Amino acid sequence: MSEFRRDPITGRWIIVATDTPRGPDDFERERHTRAVATCPFCPGNEAMTPPEIGAVRPVGGAPNGPGWRLRMIPNKFPALRIEGDLNRAGEGVYDLMNGIGAHEVIIETPDHLKDLADLSDAEIEQVIRAYQTRSLDLRGDRRFQYLLIFKNYGETAGASLVHAHSQLIALPIVPKRVKEELQCADHYFEYKDRCVFCDMIQQESDDRERVVLETAEFICFAPFVSRFPFELWIMPKAHAADFGQITEAQIVDLAGVMRHTLQRVKRTLHDPSYNFLIHTAPVTDHIRGEYHWHLEMMPRLTRVAGFEWGSGFYINPTPPEAAANYLRESA
Amino acid sequence: MSEFRRDPITGRWIIVATDTPRGPDDFERERHTRAVATCPFCPGNEAMTPPEIGAVRPVGGAPNGPGWRLRMIPNKFPALRIEGDLNRAGEGVYDLMNGIGAHEVIIETPDHLKDLADLSDAEIEQVIRAYQTRSLDLRGDRRFQYLLIFKNYGETAGASLVHAHSQLIALPIVPKRVKEELQCADHYFEYKDRCVFCDMIQQESDDRERVVLETAEFICFAPFVSRFPFELWIMPKAHAADFGQITEAQIVDLAGVMRHTLQRVKRTLHDPSYNFLIHTAPVTDHIRGEYHWHLEMMPRLTRVAGFEWGSGFYINPTPPEAAANYLRESA
Repeated sequence: MSEFRRDPITGRWIIVATDTPRGPDDFERERHTRAVATCPFCPGNEAMTPPEIGAVRPVGGAPNGPGWRLRMIPNKFPALRIEGDLNRAGEGVYDLMNGIGAHEVIIETPDHLKDLADLSDAEIEQVIRAYQTRSLDLRGDRRFQYLLIFKNYGETAGASLVHAHSQLIALPIVPKRVKEELQCADHYFEYKDRCVFCDMIQQESDDRERVVLETAEFICFAPFVSRFPFELWIMPKAHAADFGQITEAQIVDLAGVMRHTLQRVKRTLHDPSYNFLIHTAPVTDHIRGEYHWHLEMMPRLTRVAGFEWGSGFYINPTPPEAAANYLRESA
Repeated sequence: MSEFRRDPITGRWIIVATDTPRGPDDFERERHTRAVATCPFCPGNEAMTPPEIGAVRPVGGAPNGPGWRLRMIPNKFPALRIEGDLNRAGEGVYDLMNGIGAHEVIIETPDHLKDLADLSDAEIEQVIRAYQTRSLDLRGDRRFQYLLIFKNYGETAGASLVHAHSQLIALPIVPKRVKEELQCADHYFEYKDRCVFCDMIQQESDDRERVVLETAEFICFAPFVSRFPFELWIMPKAHAADFGQITEAQIVDLAGVMRHTLQRVKRTLHDPSYNFLIHTAPVTDHIRGEYHWHLEMMPRLTRVAGFEWGSGFYINPTPPEAAANYLRESA
């Protein structure tokens, strides 16, 4: 018998195949080609990208030249542009506005052959600090209501360049998925006077069945309502709505959690494509008590089909309890 | 400059790349292999599927033997099972219930080498009649609140068998995507005393810019808020909430519209994978004035990545006005 499960954070239902669960070896494998050729993210090719916004250069060196350990640049083919006004307008039944926003890239390492999973804890800390720096900086622009940090790894996950990088998009509106989380969290808080994420962390930490790893500051678990096989959420254990306020102790801890998690996923699932993203409170609302920032990670092992598009339901062939177990054992 | 656009039916925003639009030849192509081997949907192999629910056999013949023109069967590997009770329960912060539902397959043709696009109008009518028959029959089961009809064509669209088929899933809950449409349509109706879909049809029919084809009964257009390049919606022009009540005249008309649409998509986009689905009112609510059934079709030309998963936003590289133009010209 499969199972319907409802996410208290979004109200979304999923269907979990609990009778014939698929394990790590039951998915197609994908090859990640790493041809260097003329990679715009490689040292020496800095002129192939727009001028950098910032970089980490431990031994100095001029901007837009080599010697960097991490580089922050505008996306050369941005989904949104930073210049201009929104010009909100109606067109009969429709609403529209100009595609204003920021679209930036964080090049995580100068090494063309490494993914985030292969970096040292110190190097991953550097990436997290770059996320924080860019978040805090972009908040200064009053047009932006939301900052979404995400990473696409592998072709199936939508990555167009193989060199390790993350992206940040600043939006003039709060996206629907985040709104849903905010609304459900508000609703839960109103009813219980508690944060739904905090309650979930407590329950997962007590149960342990879906926990992959837990440190002083963070917990990584396969959510009860995993939409995708081997989906993982990483949450700070201390209540905090705003990723931008992450502490130095948390950065150090999170780097280790991310490295261990990514390595286990890579090893257990044969280096799958994956997406991750950070959900945080909207810019103008970053001290709200009801929300709790977190990182969501989805290995891309299955295809989304007509049923999912039509319903918003997801059919997950691997119960999260089994997924967590595979990943715990790969330690 | 790209553009944000908001769907009045769901409240969903999309980003349309209006400055560097991608045309039909700017997407990867996919090969659709049609190996017969031991296809469970081919005549003579009826024993490879569960016993049929119904079939069209113009010259007679026994059930579960050859001679059929269309066959309706339970899915051999169902996402949900028909036997049992829901047993709604809580588990701490989570809600769950048993995976009760129906999951059926409609084999559209005995011909292993044809897709729906290649069938005659009369054969497509037969498929639509099968959708209607199964919808009306499954309504008798009081556990089901929603019936979703959909089709996955091609590997990228999630099809696991190449032989032309559609699917139907009966659900004990109204899915989130449908709920969103119902809520927004209610809200619009409350404000304007008009159906948002009817207003949209009127506007598209007047504008013509996004219309691909229009007949006495139906309109096919690239929606203003296309999530995907070359997404198409087909809507009955007469207001009707319930697909189950489709008339014989509408079936005949719709068959022609579907054939022309699918053929144009196949020709213009080099036989892409696609999904389509029918959105209709919930079973217990099928006479509501605010809703309007319709078919949504999405060729699968792009990949969904971290930004889309994290935001619920879609970035569409082909403006629907351009898509409609390409498809009109392919007539």
